[in-house]
Amino acid sequence: MAGEAFRTALACLDADGPPRVWSLIVTAFGDLAQGEDARLSGTLLTRLLGFYDVKPEAIRVALHRLRRDGWIDAERSGREGQYALSATGRAQSRAASPAIYGAPSPAPRDWHVLLAGSGADEGRRALDTALLEDGVIPVGPAAALVPGPVPQDPGHLAAFAIAPRAVPGWFSGALCPPDLTAAAARLASEGARLAESLDRDGALTPLEIAALRVLLVHGWRRVALRIPDVPDAFLPAGWQGAAARARVHEVLGRLPRPPLPEIEEAARRS
Amino acid sequence: MAGEAFRTALACLDADGPPRVWSLIVTAFGDLAQGEDARLSGTLLTRLLGFYDVKPEAIRVALHRLRRDGWIDAERSGREGQYALSATGRAQSRAASPAIYGAPSPAPRDWHVLLAGSGADEGRRALDTALLEDGVIPVGPAAALVPGPVPQDPGHLAAFAIAPRAVPGWFSGALCPPDLTAAAARLASEGARLAESLDRDGALTPLEIAALRVLLVHGWRRVALRIPDVPDAFLPAGWQGAAARARVHEVLGRLPRPPLPEIEEAARRS
Repeated sequence: MAGEAFRTALACLDADGPPRVWSLIVTAFGDLAQGEDARLSGTLLTRLLGFYDVKPEAIRVALHRLRRDGWIDAERSGREGQYALSATGRAQSRAASPAIYGAPSPAPRDWHVLLAGSGADEGRRALDTALLEDGVIPVGPAAALVPGPVPQDPGHLAAFAIAPRAVPGWFSGALCPPDLTAAAARLASEGARLAESLDRDGALTPLEIAALRVLLVHGWRRVALRIPDVPDAFLPAGWQGAAARARVHEVLGRLPRPPLPEIEEAARRS
Repeated sequence: MAGEAFRTALACLDADGPPRVWSLIVTAFGDLAQGEDARLSGTLLTRLLGFYDVKPEAIRVALHRLRRDGWIDAERSGREGQYALSATGRAQSRAASPAIYGAPSPAPRDWHVLLAGSGADEGRRALDTALLEDGVIPVGPAAALVPGPVPQDPGHLAAFAIAPRAVPGWFSGALCPPDLTAAAARLASEGARLAESLDRDGALTPLEIAALRVLLVHGWRRVALRIPDVPDAFLPAGWQGAAARARVHEVLGRLPRPPLPEIEEAARRS
Protein backbone atom coordinates (compact mmCIF):
# COMPACT_ATOMS: atom_id res chain seq x y z
CA MET A 1 0.00 0.00 0.00
CA ALA A 2 1.20 3.47 -1.04
CA GLY A 3 1.51 4.87 2.45
CA GLU A 4 3.80 7.83 1.93
CA ALA A 5 2.21 8.89 -1.34
CA PHE A 6 -1.16 8.97 0.36
CA ARG A 7 0.03 10.94 3.29
CA THR A 8 1.60 13.43 0.90
CA ALA A 9 -1.56 13.68 -1.18
CA LEU A 10 -3.65 14.13 1.95
CA ALA A 11 -1.34 16.97 3.00
CA CYS A 12 -2.54 18.87 -0.05
CA LEU A 13 -5.99 18.96 1.50
CA ASP A 14 -5.08 19.24 5.16
CA ALA A 15 -5.17 22.98 5.48
CA ASP A 16 -8.76 23.09 4.25
CA GLY A 17 -9.85 20.55 6.85
CA PRO A 18 -11.27 17.15 5.94
CA PRO A 19 -12.73 17.19 2.41
CA ARG A 20 -16.50 17.13 2.08
CA VAL A 21 -17.65 13.70 1.05
CA TRP A 22 -20.12 14.81 -1.64
CA SER A 23 -17.42 17.01 -3.16
CA LEU A 24 -14.92 14.12 -3.19
CA ILE A 25 -17.53 11.97 -4.96
CA VAL A 26 -18.04 14.69 -7.58
CA THR A 27 -14.28 14.66 -8.14
CA ALA A 28 -14.25 10.87 -8.40
CA PHE A 29 -16.94 10.89 -11.07
CA GLY A 30 -15.21 13.70 -12.92
CA ASP A 31 -11.88 11.92 -12.99
CA LEU A 32 -12.92 8.27 -13.33
CA ALA A 33 -16.40 8.18 -14.82
CA GLN A 34 -17.10 11.25 -16.89
CA GLY A 35 -17.98 9.21 -20.03
CA GLU A 36 -21.57 8.64 -21.17
CA ASP A 37 -21.78 5.00 -20.10
CA ALA A 38 -19.41 5.10 -17.15
CA ARG A 39 -20.73 3.78 -13.82
CA LEU A 40 -19.19 3.62 -10.36
CA SER A 41 -20.44 0.93 -8.03
CA GLY A 42 -21.22 1.62 -4.39
CA THR A 43 -18.54 -0.94 -3.54
CA LEU A 44 -15.91 0.95 -5.51
CA LEU A 45 -16.86 4.31 -4.00
CA THR A 46 -16.75 2.80 -0.51
CA ARG A 47 -13.30 1.27 -1.09
CA LEU A 48 -11.99 4.41 -2.82
CA LEU A 49 -13.10 6.84 -0.13
CA GLY A 50 -12.12 4.34 2.53
CA PHE A 51 -8.54 5.27 1.74
CA TYR A 52 -9.29 8.69 3.19
CA ASP A 53 -11.14 7.22 6.18
CA VAL A 54 -14.57 8.19 4.88
CA LYS A 55 -17.18 5.92 6.48
CA PRO A 56 -19.74 3.99 4.33
CA GLU A 57 -22.60 5.73 6.12
CA ALA A 58 -21.21 9.16 5.13
CA ILE A 59 -20.95 7.94 1.54
CA ARG A 60 -24.59 6.82 1.53
CA VAL A 61 -25.72 10.22 2.83
CA ALA A 62 -23.63 12.06 0.22
CA LEU A 63 -24.92 9.85 -2.63
CA HIS A 64 -28.49 10.53 -1.49
CA ARG A 65 -27.83 14.26 -1.52
CA LEU A 66 -26.17 14.18 -4.97
CA ARG A 67 -29.17 12.24 -6.38
CA ARG A 68 -31.60 14.68 -4.82
CA ASP A 69 -29.69 17.61 -6.32
CA GLY A 70 -29.70 16.00 -9.78
CA TRP A 71 -25.94 15.45 -9.98
CA ILE A 72 -26.03 11.67 -10.24
CA ASP A 73 -28.46 8.94 -11.25
CA ALA A 74 -28.65 5.61 -9.46
CA GLU A 75 -29.75 2.12 -10.43
CA ARG A 76 -29.61 -1.27 -8.77
CA SER A 77 -27.71 -4.14 -10.31
CA GLY A 78 -28.57 -7.18 -8.17
CA ARG A 79 -27.65 -6.30 -4.60
CA GLU A 80 -25.26 -3.51 -5.65
CA GLY A 81 -25.97 0.17 -6.33
CA GLN A 82 -24.57 1.62 -9.55
CA TYR A 83 -24.12 5.35 -9.94
CA ALA A 84 -23.52 7.59 -12.95
CA LEU A 85 -23.35 11.30 -13.58
CA SER A 86 -26.68 12.78 -14.67
CA ALA A 87 -26.76 14.77 -17.89
CA THR A 88 -26.49 17.92 -15.77
CA GLY A 89 -23.67 16.54 -13.65
CA ARG A 90 -21.78 15.40 -16.75
CA ALA A 91 -22.17 18.81 -18.40
CA GLN A 92 -20.79 20.57 -15.33
CA SER A 93 -18.00 18.06 -14.99
CA ARG A 94 -17.02 18.54 -18.63
CA ALA A 95 -17.13 22.31 -18.29
CA ALA A 96 -14.63 22.16 -15.44
CA SER A 97 -12.24 19.71 -17.12
CA PRO A 98 -10.21 22.12 -19.26
CA ALA A 99 -9.26 24.21 -16.21
CA ILE A 100 -8.31 21.06 -14.28
CA TYR A 101 -6.61 18.91 -16.91
CA GLY A 102 -5.77 21.36 -19.68
CA ALA A 103 -2.94 23.77 -20.30
CA PRO A 104 -3.45 27.21 -18.77
CA SER A 105 -5.56 29.28 -21.12
CA PRO A 106 -3.59 32.27 -22.35
CA ALA A 107 -4.85 35.36 -20.53
CA PRO A 108 -6.66 37.93 -22.67
CA ARG A 109 -4.10 40.31 -24.18
CA ASP A 110 -6.33 43.34 -24.60
CA TRP A 111 -7.67 45.03 -21.51
CA HIS A 112 -9.47 48.25 -20.83
CA VAL A 113 -10.47 50.18 -17.76
CA LEU A 114 -14.04 51.35 -17.16
CA LEU A 115 -14.50 54.37 -14.90
CA ALA A 116 -17.72 55.69 -13.39
CA GLY A 117 -18.09 59.11 -11.82
CA SER A 118 -18.97 59.94 -8.26
CA GLY A 119 -22.50 59.47 -7.06
CA ALA A 120 -25.17 56.90 -7.88
CA ASP A 121 -25.57 58.00 -11.46
CA GLU A 122 -26.06 56.22 -14.78
CA GLY A 123 -22.34 55.54 -14.97
CA ARG A 124 -22.45 53.64 -11.71
CA ARG A 125 -25.37 51.56 -12.90
CA ALA A 126 -23.56 50.85 -16.18
CA LEU A 127 -20.52 49.72 -14.18
CA ASP A 128 -22.63 47.41 -12.04
CA THR A 129 -23.95 45.83 -15.24
CA ALA A 130 -20.44 45.47 -16.67
CA LEU A 131 -19.31 43.73 -13.49
CA LEU A 132 -21.77 40.90 -14.14
CA GLU A 133 -19.68 39.76 -17.12
CA ASP A 134 -17.13 36.96 -16.80
CA GLY A 135 -13.57 38.04 -16.27
CA VAL A 136 -14.33 41.63 -15.27
CA ILE A 137 -12.20 42.74 -12.31
CA PRO A 138 -13.72 45.30 -9.94
CA VAL A 139 -11.13 47.83 -8.75
CA GLY A 140 -12.19 50.11 -5.95
CA PRO A 141 -15.71 51.52 -5.71
CA ALA A 142 -16.18 52.84 -9.26
CA ALA A 143 -13.74 51.21 -11.66
CA ALA A 144 -13.22 47.88 -13.38
CA LEU A 145 -10.64 46.22 -15.58
CA VAL A 146 -12.23 44.39 -18.47
CA PRO A 147 -10.69 41.89 -20.89
CA GLY A 148 -11.03 42.69 -24.56
CA PRO A 149 -10.64 45.78 -26.70
CA VAL A 150 -12.17 49.04 -25.50
CA PRO A 151 -15.80 49.28 -26.67
CA GLN A 152 -16.62 51.75 -29.41
CA ASP A 153 -19.36 53.36 -27.33
CA PRO A 154 -19.07 52.70 -23.60
CA GLY A 155 -22.11 54.86 -22.91
CA HIS A 156 -22.00 56.52 -19.52
CA LEU A 157 -18.60 55.07 -18.66
CA ALA A 158 -15.18 56.43 -19.43
CA ALA A 159 -13.25 53.62 -21.13
CA PHE A 160 -9.55 53.50 -21.96
CA ALA A 161 -7.37 50.75 -23.35
CA ILE A 162 -4.67 49.85 -20.83
CA ALA A 163 -1.42 47.95 -20.88
CA PRO A 164 -1.37 45.44 -18.00
CA ARG A 165 1.55 45.76 -15.62
CA ALA A 166 2.50 45.07 -12.02
CA VAL A 167 -0.21 45.90 -9.49
CA PRO A 168 -0.15 46.56 -5.73
CA GLY A 169 -0.90 43.85 -3.20
CA TRP A 170 -4.52 44.83 -2.55
CA PHE A 171 -5.23 44.38 -6.26
CA SER A 172 -3.64 40.95 -6.75
CA GLY A 173 -4.84 39.91 -3.30
CA ALA A 174 -8.43 40.52 -4.37
CA LEU A 175 -7.91 38.35 -7.46
CA CYS A 176 -6.06 35.61 -5.56
CA PRO A 177 -7.01 35.71 -1.87
CA PRO A 178 -4.39 34.46 0.59
CA ASP A 179 -6.07 31.06 1.02
CA LEU A 180 -5.91 30.46 -2.74
CA THR A 181 -2.31 31.60 -2.95
CA ALA A 182 -1.42 29.34 -0.01
CA ALA A 183 -3.28 26.37 -1.53
CA ALA A 184 -1.44 26.78 -4.84
CA ALA A 185 1.91 26.96 -3.04
CA ARG A 186 1.03 23.87 -0.99
CA LEU A 187 0.03 21.92 -4.12
CA ALA A 188 3.27 22.90 -5.83
CA SER A 189 5.47 21.72 -2.96
CA GLU A 190 3.37 18.67 -1.98
CA GLY A 191 3.05 17.74 -5.66
CA ALA A 192 6.83 17.63 -5.88
CA ARG A 193 7.01 15.49 -2.73
CA LEU A 194 4.29 13.23 -4.14
CA ALA A 195 6.32 12.67 -7.31
CA GLU A 196 9.35 11.75 -5.17
CA SER A 197 7.39 9.37 -2.98
CA LEU A 198 6.01 7.63 -6.06
CA ASP A 199 9.61 6.81 -6.97
CA ARG A 200 10.00 5.07 -3.61
CA ASP A 201 6.58 3.46 -3.17
CA GLY A 202 6.97 1.20 -6.19
CA ALA A 203 4.04 -0.34 -8.06
CA LEU A 204 0.49 0.67 -7.08
CA THR A 205 -2.71 -1.26 -7.58
CA PRO A 206 -5.37 0.18 -9.93
CA LEU A 207 -7.47 1.06 -6.87
CA GLU A 208 -4.58 2.87 -5.21
CA ILE A 209 -3.88 4.76 -8.40
CA ALA A 210 -7.53 5.77 -8.68
CA ALA A 211 -7.61 6.88 -5.05
CA LEU A 212 -4.42 8.92 -5.43
CA ARG A 213 -5.70 10.57 -8.61
CA VAL A 214 -9.01 11.51 -7.00
CA LEU A 215 -7.32 12.94 -3.95
CA LEU A 216 -4.86 14.99 -6.00
CA VAL A 217 -7.43 16.18 -8.53
CA HIS A 218 -9.71 17.12 -5.65
CA GLY A 219 -7.10 19.40 -4.12
CA TRP A 220 -6.16 20.85 -7.50
CA ARG A 221 -9.75 21.32 -8.65
CA ARG A 222 -10.45 23.68 -5.81
CA VAL A 223 -7.47 25.80 -6.84
CA ALA A 224 -7.68 25.46 -10.63
CA LEU A 225 -11.29 26.62 -10.84
CA ARG A 226 -10.50 29.76 -8.85
CA ILE A 227 -7.41 30.87 -10.79
CA PRO A 228 -8.38 34.15 -12.46
CA ASP A 229 -7.87 34.48 -16.18
CA VAL A 230 -5.53 37.46 -15.96
CA PRO A 231 -2.05 38.47 -17.08
CA ASP A 232 0.78 37.19 -14.88
CA ALA A 233 1.45 40.81 -13.88
CA PHE A 234 -1.84 40.86 -11.93
CA LEU A 235 -1.00 37.79 -9.83
CA PRO A 236 0.45 38.00 -6.31
CA ALA A 237 4.20 37.95 -5.79
CA GLY A 238 5.30 34.35 -5.35
CA TRP A 239 2.15 32.98 -6.99
CA GLN A 240 2.65 29.22 -7.48
CA GLY A 241 -0.37 28.42 -9.62
CA ALA A 242 1.67 27.52 -12.68
CA ALA A 243 4.02 25.34 -10.62
CA ALA A 244 1.05 23.63 -8.96
CA ARG A 245 -0.50 22.84 -12.32
CA ALA A 246 2.81 21.48 -13.63
CA ARG A 247 3.31 19.23 -10.57
CA VAL A 248 -0.25 17.95 -10.58
CA HIS A 249 -0.16 17.21 -14.28
CA GLU A 250 3.22 15.50 -13.88
CA VAL A 251 1.89 13.17 -11.18
CA LEU A 252 -1.34 12.50 -13.08
CA GLY A 253 0.80 11.66 -16.12
CA ARG A 254 2.74 9.15 -14.04
CA LEU A 255 -0.48 7.61 -12.73
CA PRO A 256 -2.54 7.00 -15.87
CA ARG A 257 -6.21 6.41 -15.17
CA PRO A 258 -6.70 2.60 -15.06
CA PRO A 259 -9.61 1.19 -17.11
CA LEU A 260 -12.78 1.31 -15.00
CA PRO A 261 -13.32 -2.50 -15.07
CA GLU A 262 -9.87 -2.98 -13.58
CA ILE A 263 -10.64 -0.60 -10.75
CA GLU A 264 -14.01 -2.26 -10.11
CA GLU A 265 -12.31 -5.66 -10.12
CA ALA A 266 -9.67 -4.43 -7.66
CA ALA A 267 -12.38 -2.98 -5.40
CA ARG A 268 -14.36 -6.26 -5.37
CA ARG A 269 -11.25 -8.29 -4.56
CA SER A 270 -9.77 -6.15 -1.82
CA MET B 1 -16.48 106.23 -31.16
CA ALA B 2 -16.56 102.47 -31.74
CA GLY B 3 -20.13 101.95 -30.59
CA GLU B 4 -20.96 98.60 -32.13
CA ALA B 5 -17.56 97.10 -31.42
CA PHE B 6 -17.95 98.01 -27.77
CA ARG B 7 -21.43 96.57 -27.49
CA THR B 8 -20.15 93.37 -29.07
CA ALA B 9 -17.17 93.17 -26.73
CA LEU B 10 -19.41 93.84 -23.74
CA ALA B 11 -21.64 90.97 -24.86
CA CYS B 12 -18.69 88.65 -24.25
CA LEU B 13 -18.92 89.50 -20.56
CA ASP B 14 -22.65 89.92 -20.17
CA ALA B 15 -23.53 86.42 -19.05
CA ASP B 16 -21.13 86.65 -16.13
CA GLY B 17 -22.72 89.86 -14.90
CA PRO B 18 -20.82 93.17 -14.73
CA PRO B 19 -17.06 92.54 -14.47
CA ARG B 20 -15.43 93.18 -11.11
CA VAL B 21 -13.52 96.42 -11.20
CA TRP B 22 -10.36 95.14 -9.49
CA SER B 23 -10.29 92.23 -11.94
CA LEU B 24 -10.65 94.59 -14.92
CA ILE B 25 -7.78 96.66 -13.58
CA VAL B 26 -5.61 93.53 -13.30
CA THR B 27 -6.41 92.79 -16.94
CA ALA B 28 -5.58 96.37 -17.94
CA PHE B 29 -2.16 96.19 -16.30
CA GLY B 30 -1.54 92.77 -17.79
CA ASP B 31 -2.37 93.90 -21.31
CA LEU B 32 -1.09 97.48 -21.32
CA ALA B 33 1.54 97.80 -18.60
CA GLN B 34 3.19 94.49 -17.88
CA GLY B 35 6.70 95.88 -18.53
CA GLU B 36 9.15 96.72 -15.74
CA ASP B 37 8.83 100.50 -16.08
CA ALA B 38 5.25 100.71 -17.31
CA ARG B 39 2.87 102.98 -15.37
CA LEU B 40 -0.84 103.67 -15.75
CA SER B 41 -2.10 107.01 -14.52
CA GLY B 42 -5.28 107.33 -12.51
CA THR B 43 -6.60 109.52 -15.31
CA LEU B 44 -6.02 106.80 -17.88
CA LEU B 45 -7.62 104.12 -15.74
CA THR B 46 -10.61 106.34 -15.13
CA ARG B 47 -11.07 107.09 -18.83
CA LEU B 48 -10.45 103.48 -19.83
CA LEU B 49 -12.93 101.94 -17.41
CA GLY B 50 -15.32 104.81 -18.07
CA PHE B 51 -16.01 103.12 -21.39
CA TYR B 52 -17.65 100.32 -19.42
CA ASP B 53 -19.49 102.72 -17.15
CA VAL B 54 -17.24 102.08 -14.18
CA LYS B 55 -17.42 105.07 -11.81
CA PRO B 56 -14.21 106.84 -10.59
CA GLU B 57 -15.14 106.07 -6.97
CA ALA B 58 -15.28 102.33 -7.74
CA ILE B 59 -11.86 102.59 -9.40
CA ARG B 60 -10.39 104.29 -6.31
CA VAL B 61 -11.74 101.54 -4.07
CA ALA B 62 -10.39 98.82 -6.35
CA LEU B 63 -6.95 100.47 -6.58
CA HIS B 64 -6.83 100.70 -2.80
CA ARG B 65 -7.64 97.02 -2.52
CA LEU B 66 -5.03 96.00 -5.11
CA ARG B 67 -2.36 98.03 -3.27
CA ARG B 68 -3.33 96.47 0.04
CA ASP B 69 -3.10 92.98 -1.51
CA GLY B 70 0.33 93.73 -2.97
CA TRP B 71 -0.72 93.57 -6.61
CA ILE B 72 0.17 97.15 -7.49
CA ASP B 73 2.38 99.94 -6.26
CA ALA B 74 1.34 103.59 -6.32
CA GLU B 75 3.19 106.86 -6.45
CA ARG B 76 2.20 110.50 -6.89
CA SER B 77 3.39 112.54 -9.84
CA GLY B 78 2.26 116.07 -9.15
CA ARG B 79 -1.48 115.93 -8.62
CA GLU B 80 -1.84 112.63 -10.44
CA GLY B 81 -1.58 109.07 -9.11
CA GLN B 82 0.65 106.69 -11.03
CA TYR B 83 0.24 102.97 -10.67
CA ALA B 84 2.43 100.00 -11.62
CA LEU B 85 2.35 96.27 -11.08
CA SER B 86 4.31 95.19 -8.01
CA ALA B 87 6.97 92.51 -8.46
CA THR B 88 4.41 89.95 -7.30
CA GLY B 89 1.69 91.28 -9.57
CA ARG B 90 4.05 91.33 -12.53
CA ALA B 91 5.16 87.75 -11.88
CA GLN B 92 1.56 86.56 -11.76
CA SER B 93 0.66 88.57 -14.81
CA ARG B 94 3.57 87.09 -16.73
CA ALA B 95 2.71 83.59 -15.63
CA ALA B 96 -0.79 83.99 -17.07
CA SER B 97 0.31 85.54 -20.37
CA PRO B 98 1.18 82.37 -22.33
CA ALA B 99 -2.31 80.94 -21.76
CA ILE B 100 -3.92 84.24 -22.79
CA TYR B 101 -1.75 85.39 -25.69
CA GLY B 102 0.10 82.25 -26.73
CA ALA B 103 -0.71 79.31 -28.97
CA PRO B 104 -2.50 76.49 -27.18
CA SER B 105 0.06 74.33 -25.45
CA PRO B 106 0.04 70.83 -26.90
CA ALA B 107 -1.72 68.54 -24.43
CA PRO B 108 0.45 65.88 -22.79
CA ARG B 109 0.55 62.82 -25.02
CA ASP B 110 1.22 60.20 -22.39
CA TRP B 111 -1.43 59.55 -19.79
CA HIS B 112 -1.97 56.95 -17.15
CA VAL B 113 -4.76 56.02 -14.82
CA LEU B 114 -4.25 55.63 -11.07
CA LEU B 115 -6.67 53.38 -9.22
CA ALA B 116 -7.16 53.01 -5.47
CA GLY B 117 -9.05 50.19 -3.83
CA SER B 118 -12.17 50.40 -1.73
CA GLY B 119 -11.94 51.76 1.78
CA ALA B 120 -9.81 54.47 3.36
CA ASP B 121 -6.54 52.61 2.89
CA GLU B 122 -3.01 53.59 1.90
CA GLY B 123 -4.03 53.57 -1.75
CA ARG B 124 -6.70 56.20 -1.12
CA ARG B 125 -4.21 58.38 0.72
CA ALA B 126 -1.71 57.97 -2.13
CA LEU B 127 -4.44 59.02 -4.58
CA ASP B 128 -5.27 62.10 -2.52
CA THR B 129 -1.59 63.06 -2.68
CA ALA B 130 -1.44 62.46 -6.44
CA LEU B 131 -4.48 64.70 -6.91
CA LEU B 132 -2.54 67.67 -5.53
CA GLU B 133 -0.34 67.70 -8.66
CA ASP B 134 -1.09 70.02 -11.58
CA GLY B 135 -3.03 68.51 -14.43
CA VAL B 136 -4.26 65.44 -12.57
CA ILE B 137 -7.91 64.73 -13.33
CA PRO B 138 -9.99 63.10 -10.59
CA VAL B 139 -12.43 60.53 -11.99
CA GLY B 140 -15.03 59.21 -9.60
CA PRO B 141 -14.23 58.51 -5.96
CA ALA B 142 -11.03 56.47 -6.30
CA ALA B 143 -9.40 57.04 -9.69
CA ALA B 144 -7.44 59.73 -11.50
CA LEU B 145 -6.05 60.34 -14.95
CA VAL B 146 -2.52 61.67 -14.82
CA PRO B 147 -0.41 63.23 -17.58
CA GLY B 148 2.95 61.63 -18.21
CA PRO B 149 4.27 58.10 -18.48
CA VAL B 150 3.16 55.54 -15.94
CA PRO B 151 5.48 55.63 -12.89
CA GLN B 152 7.85 52.72 -12.39
CA ASP B 153 6.65 52.16 -8.84
CA PRO B 154 3.22 53.65 -8.12
CA GLY B 155 3.31 52.25 -4.59
CA HIS B 156 -0.14 51.46 -3.24
CA LEU B 157 -1.91 52.48 -6.44
CA ALA B 158 -2.63 50.42 -9.51
CA ALA B 159 -1.27 52.38 -12.48
CA PHE B 160 -1.78 51.67 -16.16
CA ALA B 161 -0.81 53.60 -19.26
CA ILE B 162 -3.93 54.60 -21.18
CA ALA B 163 -4.71 55.85 -24.64
CA PRO B 164 -6.96 58.94 -24.41
CA ARG B 165 -10.25 58.69 -26.28
CA ALA B 166 -13.78 60.06 -26.21
CA VAL B 167 -15.30 60.32 -22.74
CA PRO B 168 -18.88 60.58 -21.49
CA GLY B 169 -20.50 63.90 -20.66
CA TRP B 170 -19.98 63.74 -16.90
CA PHE B 171 -16.24 63.40 -17.48
CA SER B 172 -15.80 66.27 -19.94
CA GLY B 173 -18.37 68.30 -18.01
CA ALA B 174 -16.22 68.08 -14.89
CA LEU B 175 -13.19 69.32 -16.87
CA CYS B 176 -15.14 72.07 -18.63
CA PRO B 177 -18.21 73.01 -16.59
CA PRO B 178 -21.23 74.31 -18.55
CA ASP B 179 -20.47 77.95 -17.71
CA LEU B 180 -16.96 77.62 -19.15
CA THR B 181 -18.22 75.86 -22.26
CA ALA B 182 -20.87 78.54 -22.73
CA ALA B 183 -18.34 81.33 -22.20
CA ALA B 184 -16.00 79.83 -24.81
CA ALA B 185 -18.86 79.51 -27.32
CA ARG B 186 -19.93 83.10 -26.62
CA LEU B 187 -16.38 84.40 -27.13
CA ALA B 188 -16.11 82.48 -30.40
CA SER B 189 -19.32 83.93 -31.82
CA GLU B 190 -19.00 87.42 -30.34
CA GLY B 191 -15.36 87.49 -31.38
CA ALA B 192 -16.44 86.89 -34.96
CA ARG B 193 -19.05 89.65 -34.68
CA LEU B 194 -16.44 91.93 -33.15
CA ALA B 195 -14.13 91.37 -36.12
CA GLU B 196 -17.00 92.24 -38.48
CA SER B 197 -17.96 95.39 -36.58
CA LEU B 198 -14.33 96.56 -36.67
CA ASP B 199 -14.63 96.51 -40.47
CA ARG B 200 -17.55 98.88 -40.20
CA ASP B 201 -16.50 101.11 -37.32
CA GLY B 202 -13.48 102.50 -39.12
CA ALA B 203 -10.47 104.04 -37.37
CA LEU B 204 -10.32 103.94 -33.55
CA THR B 205 -8.41 106.22 -31.21
CA PRO B 206 -5.55 104.75 -29.14
CA LEU B 207 -7.78 104.98 -26.06
CA GLU B 208 -10.62 103.15 -27.78
CA ILE B 209 -8.22 100.44 -28.95
CA ALA B 210 -6.86 100.06 -25.42
CA ALA B 211 -10.38 99.86 -23.97
CA LEU B 212 -11.48 97.27 -26.53
CA ARG B 213 -8.37 95.15 -25.95
CA VAL B 214 -8.82 95.20 -22.18
CA LEU B 215 -12.48 94.27 -22.45
CA LEU B 216 -11.80 91.42 -24.83
CA VAL B 217 -8.75 90.12 -23.00
CA HIS B 218 -10.74 90.28 -19.78
CA GLY B 219 -13.45 88.01 -21.18
CA TRP B 220 -10.91 85.69 -22.74
CA ARG B 221 -8.65 85.58 -19.68
CA ARG B 222 -11.42 84.11 -17.57
CA VAL B 223 -11.84 81.34 -20.14
CA ALA B 224 -8.23 80.80 -21.18
CA LEU B 225 -6.94 80.28 -17.65
CA ARG B 226 -9.60 77.63 -17.00
CA ILE B 227 -9.07 75.57 -20.17
CA PRO B 228 -7.73 72.22 -18.99
CA ASP B 229 -4.52 70.95 -20.52
CA VAL B 230 -6.05 67.73 -21.88
CA PRO B 231 -6.41 65.91 -25.18
CA ASP B 232 -9.22 67.16 -27.42
CA ALA B 233 -10.98 63.83 -26.85
CA PHE B 234 -11.62 64.81 -23.22
CA LEU B 235 -13.35 68.10 -24.08
CA PRO B 236 -17.14 68.47 -24.27
CA ALA B 237 -18.95 68.00 -27.56
CA GLY B 238 -19.15 71.35 -29.33
CA TRP B 239 -16.31 72.79 -27.26
CA GLN B 240 -15.40 76.18 -28.81
CA GLY B 241 -12.23 76.95 -26.87
CA ALA B 242 -9.97 76.74 -29.92
CA ALA B 243 -12.36 78.91 -31.98
CA ALA B 244 -12.56 81.45 -29.15
CA ARG B 245 -8.78 81.66 -28.94
CA ALA B 246 -8.52 82.08 -32.72
CA ARG B 247 -11.14 84.86 -32.79
CA VAL B 248 -9.68 86.71 -29.82
CA HIS B 249 -6.17 86.54 -31.22
CA GLU B 250 -7.46 87.68 -34.61
CA VAL B 251 -9.10 90.76 -33.11
CA LEU B 252 -6.09 91.53 -30.90
CA GLY B 253 -3.92 91.24 -34.00
CA ARG B 254 -6.10 93.80 -35.75
CA LEU B 255 -5.92 96.11 -32.74
CA PRO B 256 -2.19 96.32 -31.96
CA ARG B 257 -1.43 97.67 -28.51
CA PRO B 258 -0.76 101.43 -28.92
CA PRO B 259 2.39 102.80 -27.22
CA LEU B 260 1.55 103.72 -23.64
CA PRO B 261 2.43 107.45 -24.08
CA GLU B 262 -0.10 107.66 -26.92
CA ILE B 263 -2.82 106.18 -24.73
CA GLU B 264 -1.94 108.50 -21.85
CA GLU B 265 -1.97 111.44 -24.23
CA ALA B 266 -5.38 110.39 -25.59
CA ALA B 267 -6.71 110.00 -22.05
CA ARG B 268 -5.52 113.46 -21.02
CA ARG B 269 -7.04 115.07 -24.11
CA SER B 270 -10.41 113.42 -24.13
